[in-house]
Amino acid sequence: MASPGSGFWSFGSEDGSGDPENSGTARAWCQVAQKFTGGIGNKLCALLYGDAEKPAESGGSQPRTTSRKATCACNQKPCNCPKAEVNYAFLHATDLLPACDGERPTLAFLQDVMDILLQYVVKSFDRSTKVIDFHYPNELLQEYNWELADQPQNLEEILMHCQTTLKYAIKTGHPRYFNQLSTGLDMVGLAADWLTSTANTNMFTYEIAPVFVLLEYVTLKKMREIIGWPGGSGDGIFSPGGAISNMYAMLIARFKMFPEVKEKGMAAVPRLIAFTSEHSHFSLKKGAAALGIGTDSVILIKCDERGKMIPSDLERRILEAKQKGFVPFLVSATAGTTVYGAFDPLLAVADICKKYKIWMHVDAAWGGGLLMSRKHKWKLSGVERANSVTWNPHKMMGVPLQCSALLVREEGLMQSCNQMHASYLFQQDKHYDLSYDTGDKALQCGRHVDVFKLWLMWRAKGTTGFEAHIDKCLELAEYLYNIIKNREGYEMVFDGKPQHTNVCFWYVPPSLRVLDNNEERMSRLSKVAPVIKARMMESGTTMVSYQPLGDKVNFFRMVISNPAATHQDIDFLIEEIERLGQDL
Amino acid sequence: MASPGSGFWSFGSEDGSGDPENSGTARAWCQVAQKFTGGIGNKLCALLYGDAEKPAESGGSQPRTTSRKATCACNQKPCNCPKAEVNYAFLHATDLLPACDGERPTLAFLQDVMDILLQYVVKSFDRSTKVIDFHYPNELLQEYNWELADQPQNLEEILMHCQTTLKYAIKTGHPRYFNQLSTGLDMVGLAADWLTSTANTNMFTYEIAPVFVLLEYVTLKKMREIIGWPGGSGDGIFSPGGAISNMYAMLIARFKMFPEVKEKGMAAVPRLIAFTSEHSHFSLKKGAAALGIGTDSVILIKCDERGKMIPSDLERRILEAKQKGFVPFLVSATAGTTVYGAFDPLLAVADICKKYKIWMHVDAAWGGGLLMSRKHKWKLSGVERANSVTWNPHKMMGVPLQCSALLVREEGLMQSCNQMHASYLFQQDKHYDLSYDTGDKALQCGRHVDVFKLWLMWRAKGTTGFEAHIDKCLELAEYLYNIIKNREGYEMVFDGKPQHTNVCFWYVPPSLRVLDNNEERMSRLSKVAPVIKARMMESGTTMVSYQPLGDKVNFFRMVISNPAATHQDIDFLIEEIERLGQDL
Repeated sequence: MASPGSGFWSFGSEDGSGDPENSGTARAWCQVAQKFTGGIGNKLCALLYGDAEKPAESGGSQPRTTSRKATCACNQKPCNCPKAEVNYAFLHATDLLPACDGERPTLAFLQDVMDILLQYVVKSFDRSTKVIDFHYPNELLQEYNWELADQPQNLEEILMHCQTTLKYAIKTGHPRYFNQLSTGLDMVGLAADWLTSTANTNMFTYEIAPVFVLLEYVTLKKMREIIGWPGGSGDGIFSPGGAISNMYAMLIARFKMFPEVKEKGMAAVPRLIAFTSEHSHFSLKKGAAALGIGTDSVILIKCDERGKMIPSDLERRILEAKQKGFVPFLVSATAGTTVYGAFDPLLAVADICKKYKIWMHVDAAWGGGLLMSRKHKWKLSGVERANSVTWNPHKMMGVPLQCSALLVREEGLMQSCNQMHASYLFQQDKHYDLSYDTGDKALQCGRHVDVFKLWLMWRAKGTTGFEAHIDKCLELAEYLYNIIKNREGYEMVFDGKPQHTNVCFWYVPPSLRVLDNNEERMSRLSKVAPVIKARMMESGTTMVSYQPLGDKVNFFRMVISNPAATHQDIDFLIEEIERLGQDL
Repeated sequence: MASPGSGFWSFGSEDGSGDPENSGTARAWCQVAQKFTGGIGNKLCALLYGDAEKPAESGGSQPRTTSRKATCACNQKPCNCPKAEVNYAFLHATDLLPACDGERPTLAFLQDVMDILLQYVVKSFDRSTKVIDFHYPNELLQEYNWELADQPQNLEEILMHCQTTLKYAIKTGHPRYFNQLSTGLDMVGLAADWLTSTANTNMFTYEIAPVFVLLEYVTLKKMREIIGWPGGSGDGIFSPGGAISNMYAMLIARFKMFPEVKEKGMAAVPRLIAFTSEHSHFSLKKGAAALGIGTDSVILIKCDERGKMIPSDLERRILEAKQKGFVPFLVSATAGTTVYGAFDPLLAVADICKKYKIWMHVDAAWGGGLLMSRKHKWKLSGVERANSVTWNPHKMMGVPLQCSALLVREEGLMQSCNQMHASYLFQQDKHYDLSYDTGDKALQCGRHVDVFKLWLMWRAKGTTGFEAHIDKCLELAEYLYNIIKNREGYEMVFDGKPQHTNVCFWYVPPSLRVLDNNEERMSRLSKVAPVIKARMMESGTTMVSYQPLGDKVNFFRMVISNPAATHQDIDFLIEEIERLGQDL
């Protein structure tokens, strides 16, 4: 069993340095918080100042026996209010609802969890806090006892685990976290995800998820309208991520061409070939491996220097496959590649797909968000000619994870492809319109409710709000590009203004700037980004991704999807890269 | 744009009847709530009494212009406190963090969302509230405007949408909700899921999910220990549900036998055959269709009258397949079938799999929880001989949705089967131990954090707490069985004490009891359960599932996984079935 060491209590002073900037922020924040009645302000202040955090009188490694206040409104610290005390050290999960008299401890416990979460939310947006308090895996494993045991722990320990978990979490909403395509923390999305957890239901039938099933219907229809399919007609589903959405597309394309594959398997069909660009996402190959198509049957089409698929190469490879007697069944064009943020020329791809009667899929997991922007949606021109589209609102649109949609132009195909008619779920003699029992079109049986956070955010922001979000992030990327394109010590991986928020560049430390462009320089340059990244994580100030690609050695890939970021944060990133990398 | 009609405000008086029992409960609850300081009690009381709920002075369809209190501690209702007012009618999502000065409205907004959720949580366990406030799809679609628009809505409308959504939600934690295998609402699991949403990260690398990756490691190891694999060694993953976990098993089994399938596809391998029982879950066929194996290659093995696979039939069908030159590659035994709750004889299946060198998978999505009980785990004897096991803690263990694990005995196989070495995620020159970057073993790229709620619940309950939960639910099922097995008007679908919590029975209304057991009786009996179920949903008092199976016409399948249920709730279900069905 874990005994809470003093480390459990260090959440309040994150870097342990007593940094005056930090405590100044805390104090300033407290002044704001004090305007609240109702105890939240006091509690958060106490947490920020640390006096509710440290095991003060009770000594380092012992659970505190003093009480936490459920919701105390007094202004004194330490507070000695006699009312409504909840001593979590003597409470266990079994004292919470549905226990008799469980309401009081339940409300107090959930409120205290909420206070911990609210504190984390506020800190996530505070630039004086770290993006990450990095520890190596073996350190984290050794510093704490994470093991599972036979006996229960008390609720005080459970609250501490919540604090500890957040202490070591990445603040993915932090304005200086640029590491992944999914960043940011939207407050309405967060609220919606909390509600989804509380409703705790499953998407398979209208019977048990009436509102969520309707909202999925409404939201998918709206997304199809935005894609440009007449009247928003078609089909779709929210799936557990872009890789699965892409796999669905491959599955449905195959079924459309050879419906007998469902019963007979791949043995009954000729060799099928899928085409996608060399810059496309690895999930296409992953899907082909899983679906029994095989990765050798995924042909990677050449890209131009900006990472866009070259249509003439696509056509050449289609003809080549046909000459071998193989059957081209799917082209997956990418709208927003993972590394370069490139948009394949969808209109040209659509023409080729039409000519050869091939299913056109668009993987717009990353780029789909640009459809919300009148300024940028031209980059996806031709998407309306696709047979299916992957679009992940949890990326560029800032919806909390997970939220990925697969949209299909032809209605009913998903159902035919995947349905198994389980009589225990999809009873045909129910008393309501069975067309709302959409679960049988899924690969999954149970399916998490992913739609509500998108729907509620859409209501709160409007399409115009998403547009403003997208336009802002793209403007920030252009700002970064303009700063570094002519700055000493930077080289762009490809020329020209970014089409998405991806900005790919090398930082060249002074010692390398004098070298000729030879193998030694390449070899040394390849080691720069990993070292800077490691130093970033250890100092916890910012995070950005790097990778090699093709013959290009490790370079930084900056992406911006968090509307919390500002020009100053971009400036900070540049300064930080130079601070951490100049001696290399 | 939706204009909030009066229906939006009816959450406080759920059935609109002014039912004295309901308001009595509300009053009693308020007395408890009043013991709190800090405003929660007052706010919840106000919500229960409805004076904060109804658009009182401002008229039906107009947004209120009066203010909501962020957190008011006064005892007066209506409250006129001048402090800390937040007028949501004038606030939008853009006023929340990361906006400048966004902390105050953000904390107030999230606290108000939380109050709505806490109210829902309390009502979920209140037997005087409905399980469901049922509306037909067209009613729900017409009564409200769910459409998405260009312009944003204010936060008052957003809070109303939260209330409306919960008003029509199924209370899946309600003690009388028995409809699915996943029921109940665990308070620690809920808190953990809120934290997961707040952390909003992705499982693919240690870099961005350090604690969650370690907790997955610890938790999967513990689950493998409980399965009985030496030292808990092996592999595994949390996947988006049991169907996907079963698909993983099929995928890995195929790869183990024919690794070339990854590159070459199914064309390169002989015809593969999978075996599972006729009572097994439909996801086996769904997986076979997706993986290019084909549903015809899934052979359904006969079951005995209790729904258990008959080993001699399994062996016969394996030999038959081999004689045809096909290759048996997978047997999926079920531990806890969906309808009967039957446990296949795992030891006998293991002997056959060993004899013919076939991958043995155990689909214990539903039955896996029984491994936590010293009293009941014998039902899974032989599971330790499996090559892979599906086990869904979101079913019998009451973890919030989604939480499904696939456990694999051989380490490294998942990685070899699924890895694609994406260089932008799985950089090989990172500064920490790369074995913790587990994302490439998944079919997915991004993957939701499903482990934390299970881990935190396990810490809070201990293994003994899960054991008590399981034992209690099984005892309740036996209680139900003992009541109805000899009760007039009931017929059991199969004889004998239930092995899981599934109790399958027909209710025979008085008018049918006099009929001979002929086709007419069967035909009339088949219509009884759907009508009773429809009436249940319309009255909202309880929910239980029904279905036909094989030659058996519609029968009720009772399942119990919610520890909130009591003997009285079982009695209530029986009385309710009789009340709603006696005239049929």
